[in-house]
Amino acid sequence: MVEYTPAPAWIEPRVADVATLLRARRTDDLQSVDIALFGVPFDLGTAFTPGARFGPSAVREASRMARLVNSATGVAPFDLARIADVGDAPVNPFDLMGSVDSITGFVATLKASGAIPVGIGGDNTMTLSILRGNHSGVPTGLVMFDAHVDFFDSFYGSSVNHAVPIRRAVEEGLLDPRRCVQVGIRGPVLAADDWNWGKEVGIRTITMEEYEALGRDGVIAAISDTIGDQPFHVALDIDVLDPSEAPGTGFPEAGGIRMRDLQVLLRSLTGKHVASVDICEINPMLDPTRTTMVNTLNAVFELVCIAAAGRES
Amino acid sequence: MVEYTPAPAWIEPRVADVATLLRARRTDDLQSVDIALFGVPFDLGTAFTPGARFGPSAVREASRMARLVNSATGVAPFDLARIADVGDAPVNPFDLMGSVDSITGFVATLKASGAIPVGIGGDNTMTLSILRGNHSGVPTGLVMFDAHVDFFDSFYGSSVNHAVPIRRAVEEGLLDPRRCVQVGIRGPVLAADDWNWGKEVGIRTITMEEYEALGRDGVIAAISDTIGDQPFHVALDIDVLDPSEAPGTGFPEAGGIRMRDLQVLLRSLTGKHVASVDICEINPMLDPTRTTMVNTLNAVFELVCIAAAGRES
Amino acid sequence: MVEYTPAPAWIEPRVADVATLLRARRTDDLQSVDIALFGVPFDLGTAFTPGARFGPSAVREASRMARLVNSATGVAPFDLARIADVGDAPVNPFDLMGSVDSITGFVATLKASGAIPVGIGGDNTMTLSILRGNHSGVPTGLVMFDAHVDFFDSFYGSSVNHAVPIRRAVEEGLLDPRRCVQVGIRGPVLAADDWNWGKEVGIRTITMEEYEALGRDGVIAAISDTIGDQPFHVALDIDVLDPSEAPGTGFPEAGGIRMRDLQVLLRSLTGKHVASVDICEINPMLDPTRTTMVNTLNAVFELVCIAAAGRES
Amino acid sequence: MVEYTPAPAWIEPRVADVATLLRARRTDDLQSVDIALFGVPFDLGTAFTPGARFGPSAVREASRMARLVNSATGVAPFDLARIADVGDAPVNPFDLMGSVDSITGFVATLKASGAIPVGIGGDNTMTLSILRGNHSGVPTGLVMFDAHVDFFDSFYGSSVNHAVPIRRAVEEGLLDPRRCVQVGIRGPVLAADDWNWGKEVGIRTITMEEYEALGRDGVIAAISDTIGDQPFHVALDIDVLDPSEAPGTGFPEAGGIRMRDLQVLLRSLTGKHVASVDICEINPMLDPTRTTMVNTLNAVFELVCIAAAGRES
Amino acid sequence: MVEYTPAPAWIEPRVADVATLLRARRTDDLQSVDIALFGVPFDLGTAFTPGARFGPSAVREASRMARLVNSATGVAPFDLARIADVGDAPVNPFDLMGSVDSITGFVATLKASGAIPVGIGGDNTMTLSILRGNHSGVPTGLVMFDAHVDFFDSFYGSSVNHAVPIRRAVEEGLLDPRRCVQVGIRGPVLAADDWNWGKEVGIRTITMEEYEALGRDGVIAAISDTIGDQPFHVALDIDVLDPSEAPGTGFPEAGGIRMRDLQVLLRSLTGKHVASVDICEINPMLDPTRTTMVNTLNAVFELVCIAAAGRES
Amino acid sequence: MVEYTPAPAWIEPRVADVATLLRARRTDDLQSVDIALFGVPFDLGTAFTPGARFGPSAVREASRMARLVNSATGVAPFDLARIADVGDAPVNPFDLMGSVDSITGFVATLKASGAIPVGIGGDNTMTLSILRGNHSGVPTGLVMFDAHVDFFDSFYGSSVNHAVPIRRAVEEGLLDPRRCVQVGIRGPVLAADDWNWGKEVGIRTITMEEYEALGRDGVIAAISDTIGDQPFHVALDIDVLDPSEAPGTGFPEAGGIRMRDLQVLLRSLTGKHVASVDICEINPMLDPTRTTMVNTLNAVFELVCIAAAGRES
Repeated sequence: MVEYTPAPAWIEPRVADVATLLRARRTDDLQSVDIALFGVPFDLGTAFTPGARFGPSAVREASRMARLVNSATGVAPFDLARIADVGDAPVNPFDLMGSVDSITGFVATLKASGAIPVGIGGDNTMTLSILRGNHSGVPTGLVMFDAHVDFFDSFYGSSVNHAVPIRRAVEEGLLDPRRCVQVGIRGPVLAADDWNWGKEVGIRTITMEEYEALGRDGVIAAISDTIGDQPFHVALDIDVLDPSEAPGTGFPEAGGIRMRDLQVLLRSLTGKHVASVDICEINPMLDPTRTTMVNTLNAVFELVCIAAAGRES
Repeated sequence: MVEYTPAPAWIEPRVADVATLLRARRTDDLQSVDIALFGVPFDLGTAFTPGARFGPSAVREASRMARLVNSATGVAPFDLARIADVGDAPVNPFDLMGSVDSITGFVATLKASGAIPVGIGGDNTMTLSILRGNHSGVPTGLVMFDAHVDFFDSFYGSSVNHAVPIRRAVEEGLLDPRRCVQVGIRGPVLAADDWNWGKEVGIRTITMEEYEALGRDGVIAAISDTIGDQPFHVALDIDVLDPSEAPGTGFPEAGGIRMRDLQVLLRSLTGKHVASVDICEINPMLDPTRTTMVNTLNAVFELVCIAAAGRES
Repeated sequence: MVEYTPAPAWIEPRVADVATLLRARRTDDLQSVDIALFGVPFDLGTAFTPGARFGPSAVREASRMARLVNSATGVAPFDLARIADVGDAPVNPFDLMGSVDSITGFVATLKASGAIPVGIGGDNTMTLSILRGNHSGVPTGLVMFDAHVDFFDSFYGSSVNHAVPIRRAVEEGLLDPRRCVQVGIRGPVLAADDWNWGKEVGIRTITMEEYEALGRDGVIAAISDTIGDQPFHVALDIDVLDPSEAPGTGFPEAGGIRMRDLQVLLRSLTGKHVASVDICEINPMLDPTRTTMVNTLNAVFELVCIAAAGRES
Repeated sequence: MVEYTPAPAWIEPRVADVATLLRARRTDDLQSVDIALFGVPFDLGTAFTPGARFGPSAVREASRMARLVNSATGVAPFDLARIADVGDAPVNPFDLMGSVDSITGFVATLKASGAIPVGIGGDNTMTLSILRGNHSGVPTGLVMFDAHVDFFDSFYGSSVNHAVPIRRAVEEGLLDPRRCVQVGIRGPVLAADDWNWGKEVGIRTITMEEYEALGRDGVIAAISDTIGDQPFHVALDIDVLDPSEAPGTGFPEAGGIRMRDLQVLLRSLTGKHVASVDICEINPMLDPTRTTMVNTLNAVFELVCIAAAGRES
Repeated sequence: MVEYTPAPAWIEPRVADVATLLRARRTDDLQSVDIALFGVPFDLGTAFTPGARFGPSAVREASRMARLVNSATGVAPFDLARIADVGDAPVNPFDLMGSVDSITGFVATLKASGAIPVGIGGDNTMTLSILRGNHSGVPTGLVMFDAHVDFFDSFYGSSVNHAVPIRRAVEEGLLDPRRCVQVGIRGPVLAADDWNWGKEVGIRTITMEEYEALGRDGVIAAISDTIGDQPFHVALDIDVLDPSEAPGTGFPEAGGIRMRDLQVLLRSLTGKHVASVDICEINPMLDPTRTTMVNTLNAVFELVCIAAAGRES
Repeated sequence: MVEYTPAPAWIEPRVADVATLLRARRTDDLQSVDIALFGVPFDLGTAFTPGARFGPSAVREASRMARLVNSATGVAPFDLARIADVGDAPVNPFDLMGSVDSITGFVATLKASGAIPVGIGGDNTMTLSILRGNHSGVPTGLVMFDAHVDFFDSFYGSSVNHAVPIRRAVEEGLLDPRRCVQVGIRGPVLAADDWNWGKEVGIRTITMEEYEALGRDGVIAAISDTIGDQPFHVALDIDVLDPSEAPGTGFPEAGGIRMRDLQVLLRSLTGKHVASVDICEINPMLDPTRTTMVNTLNAVFELVCIAAAGRES
């Protein structure tokens, strides 16, 4: 496994050479990869501010600051798994539906090789492609961190875009709604019944109000109770964070959770069975302070740690 | 009332057409308006960094992200009241005192039409104009969120500027000091007795130290106790927020309150009798991440919700 | 005609009220409009960096600096024509082909009302929609300022996007290629024969090399010779300017023309018969210095001047 | 004179210590100063975008890059004159008229000490204060570089602001209009007769059109012919430059002159009798690339060179 | 002592004149100074992103917002001590080791004069220079706020740089490790044993996990217990703050402490014996919102308050 | 040679995958490379503003916009030569002299493989390393584009830094001074004799004044006359450009040449024998508009074109 460990930052300066995700090796040889980091440079599913297509390239550049060991959990992911940057899913900048399919195909190839897909986007439509491409025939659970519920039926007449992936995935049997939990939901809404569908199908939606009422430990317990022991997808929309901690996203919502809390929530998943991961709505065009990238890089690392630690579970 | 509801964002894209406050209709017909949103593009009362004159235009542009229903309180303001963007108060870019008067006159016209004035600024001097223009003969209460007490006697020899409006308003009988409460006060001060005048006249000044000691619920209780059941003005200086959450303001103070907390504090006013509102010191020239605008937009929405909900009270 | 003249900037401060294109009145009553300024908040035809969808809103905001009389040509457009901001063409943020059609329909409505359409974008795909919507049955000429020839056959398998509008328009009989002239073409290209199609159909393509060889007066003569006396469309892609003068565009090319030269080139069209206008690829997300917006605003004004002056021709 | 020479940049690093204008010594002892550099941190005369009040502090910080000898003219100003940073003129952030007077008083003190005043602003209103404070009883000439004529009669009802100083100065006998020349004038105007007053009183206004017709050498000759051999004021509004070279100014105008040309124009004044200097409308809040500051610093140096070289003339 | 008090901000506008640290007087006369504020414009000890060399100049500029009295503790430092800006320590931009020595020498001179050194940097290497230059022969305690432990043995083969100062200082007998406490430590690490050395020598390292477990009061008690009653150095690396509150630093770490908490932690040191202070890793090149500078300025003020209050202890 | 041609931008979207120089393949196999593009992520030779160490990573990211054929000269470099991104030269972030040596060693390896080295920096010190590493025993000529002469004897006591490489190279017999030409030299200088050494040894220094006097064709002739027919190094310091066209550099000088002119000057070298190339002082930390990167990318392409075209000469 040694060959996939990043070059030591104390030998090769961080600023040097081409940038890869987490400073992992860039490879197209999927057979030797346990955890496949890939980009989804795509934002045609965006209703308002575009630019998340540059998310993968920005995370690669931010990865110059990546390190190797999780000081809080002790997990050293590169010692546990062969982790590689396998490039980007193919997309077409003029074709929303075609790209959703080509991303799905790319993820299916990763799944066929046995790697856990960890996709970095890109707009939230990618969640649907990853769930489709990684589908094993059995619906998975979902741990979702997001300001928005993302289960609209359609938007501007489109049934596939960044506002609908959870609904589509439940309808298609990719997700088991009773094993789905959403954390960080908030914000003014378009209509009073915007969040009803989720309740009807049994999704556990934890709003900021409930988040505060439960407390962080209560939320951790709620997540654990909901997903149980079976495999689950982790969907992290960076807009779950407070706008001050993630200004670089297409539709920020006031009053979000803190990165410190997100770290603790993510670490609570250590040892559980992560089937796949996406991190999305990262828009470097809106991030002049680079704060979003600092937090995103850390979130990618935390997610890779839980993916690596959970492989045997 | 339907005609004032913003065009549905799922039909007319948010990025389209001229920008208005909360995406409300822009009208000059004050007779049919219950809540009058207006700008105060004025910052001659600023002692240090100018630029708040662009606050109204920036809030209009940020309003492209506005929505219709408060998910926490259930209030749907456009269903409760006719809410319009009535344009900007007249100001003169070379005349501090004249502008203070012309803003006052504009607010008086709004009052005459029966609308609740909600002014978006603009520097904090505007608070005095709104209180003057909306004055009904009886002093009102005050819920003020601010880093600064704003009750200096004079500043650089001027008795009307952004450091003095509360003092002037009390002296003029516009505010009842025993029904005034200030939240978020902090920062190094110019002199040890800077905050004494407020104590002398009976204003309740809750510093960050007291804020933490009381806890959020305690602060809510203190606000409620202070203002009682009578009408009150809400004065929100965006610098009450921590600088990380509102860098776009002329004189940020380290160690402020969080937007999440401000949301909860504002919502606690739901059902109470709001007489008038101002939101000020919004400086888009200092806001490259747009975080200040995201939070300001939400604050405007929260304030409109409480104004709409409190109309019958 | 008086009613469409912007409010005097020396009475209503520039910073005040909602922003409109050139500070003109915003109207939906097309019957009384001679020159219709409209936005095309759309960038799904963009192959690389998106964000031009915010071009119209940014030009509206920049219009706060607009004035009334052209000091070089003496043209006072608001005295010559009823000029209005008629809002934005309808678009769908998820539908490239549908939006191309809905923009076309909007322009057809303007044409039916007798107004000269002046569209502000938005990506270069809009040129095709304007030519289609404004088509009178006779091919028009074209004066195009652009770094790129925009006559690819297809791109990423798509036959309608920002790299192809000129080819489509010629094929559809909207443009007479022998009356088309392109100025400012430059840059490394994808293949040695990238510019051949234009030569084959008779388009006059003036590269930067030829631009320098001809001199500015020679270019003006070449434009005049090519378009002759019949109506023509003016297509201004802001990337014709040097990147230092227009960084806010999706695909800047080193070594462009100067705004000063563009002013003189545009003014040379005064008195000629302008059928329609587009100004595109304006991306405020890439314009932190606002230089692109300053130049774009001036270009819009120059174009309105020639459109107004040429109405009788 | 040695004591006023800046510390050698090869000994004291440029980044070190407090920043002063041109790295000159900061002194309040006016008796030993030949050329007095001072700031005017004031922008209450601004009709649109404020922020020029930070011009002096930004020029001080940019001065870290200052050097000692003009490579084009050979002038070594610190060898020819005692040049000091004498601090800032007193201003009141709430009082336009009072500040105009206090700046005038400060300049009068400089004049009394025999120093040539070189003011760095600050908005263009300061030109009037410098002319008033430095007035010797005889009207001076004027070499003005500006996009705007600045001889409006009044603006928003105010007779003293950044749009009027030249008219006021001529009316007050501070300037001899027949010895006044303006270079770089351009832009759309508010009314067709905006530039008439200057012609009536005999000011030589060289628009960009005439600038190009004359050529750079022709402009130099025109300047020389106009001012003759008597003392003159140099008024440099940084907006004379093209917006790409000076985005950091309150009202940029498309199509300006180049810094390279400004250098040559300024150097043509070497050996002539400079009575006083102002450099204004420098707004660092609009200058994220620092290009405006790089050019302003060089302009200050060029102006100090001609002031130093012209002292004996 | 009066002569060192900053000019009243209500008389001399904040924007005026040269900028100094806390608006204190700039002097080279060390004999009359009790607390010596100085810059260390140096970042050659930086492994990744440089730019902290501009920290001192940026803190000077930010100091325009400085005030005089601590509203939470009541400390008025300028009434308690003669506080001056004594300029910057000499450094050489090409020489890491030489600069470490010249900074040390500068601090030794301050110590000789009896002043408490308060250094503003600059990269974290400066901590070592201050401890060396201020060494009295007896090891001091340490209160350190930092995301990183900074006790590597070497880095890129270098034994003196920003990753090692604490280890060097302990080895050299400058610090008593049993009286050293580190707060805010976090982040992924390079190797599982990165934090072992500190434990071995007895340094108290409070990670974010322990920070949360103890609570703020518990941390205050732990600090107090560790340092005891003897003199101690305060080392504040601005990266201890959450990246949203201090983006302007060379190696931000997700999930840090809040400025509000830092204020309370710092104030808990009031009355204790501060021997010396450094505030480092302030990089204005990464701070477009100025949030880092607002917080840094407040931190400098808080530190000066405790230094002033602790002088008699 | 096909294998080194970048993936077609019309198949693999530009935004996709890891970024490489000119979108060329990243390889460590030097034996099959004719032109070796490499980064020098190093800026310890910088006297003032650091950050050029991020130049290589920024040029890689900007390379997403790279194309294949030079439209002005017809050169298709990837058809003429095997062009690869060979990674970065090894550097040590704490060791100026050691890094200069390790860069030299890296270039020597490239030379041994027969590749033409094209280095992208990084500060100007790298020029010396490339000349040393590529030295064949015979001094080469030099075509240098720079605002500064870079032939100081020493700076801050250091004989190797970004202000001295030309002098060192001449002294070491790496350059034949009579075959060296410098274009774009300008700016105030530290001392009147700053440029004398070059004249003494026979370097042809073309200042901006001479540049204008000669005209562009005259400069091209002067370059050609000076270098003759033998191999030469091309040294391009991006600060040769006007600050408006390259704000992202450590020490910009007002009044530089235009990118359009640089393109023509570079193309005049087509067919000549280029021995090696460096492009330096590219500082993305100072480039928020990305203009510097657009121009740098084009300059890299132009230089690769002349290197490819000149291989047979």
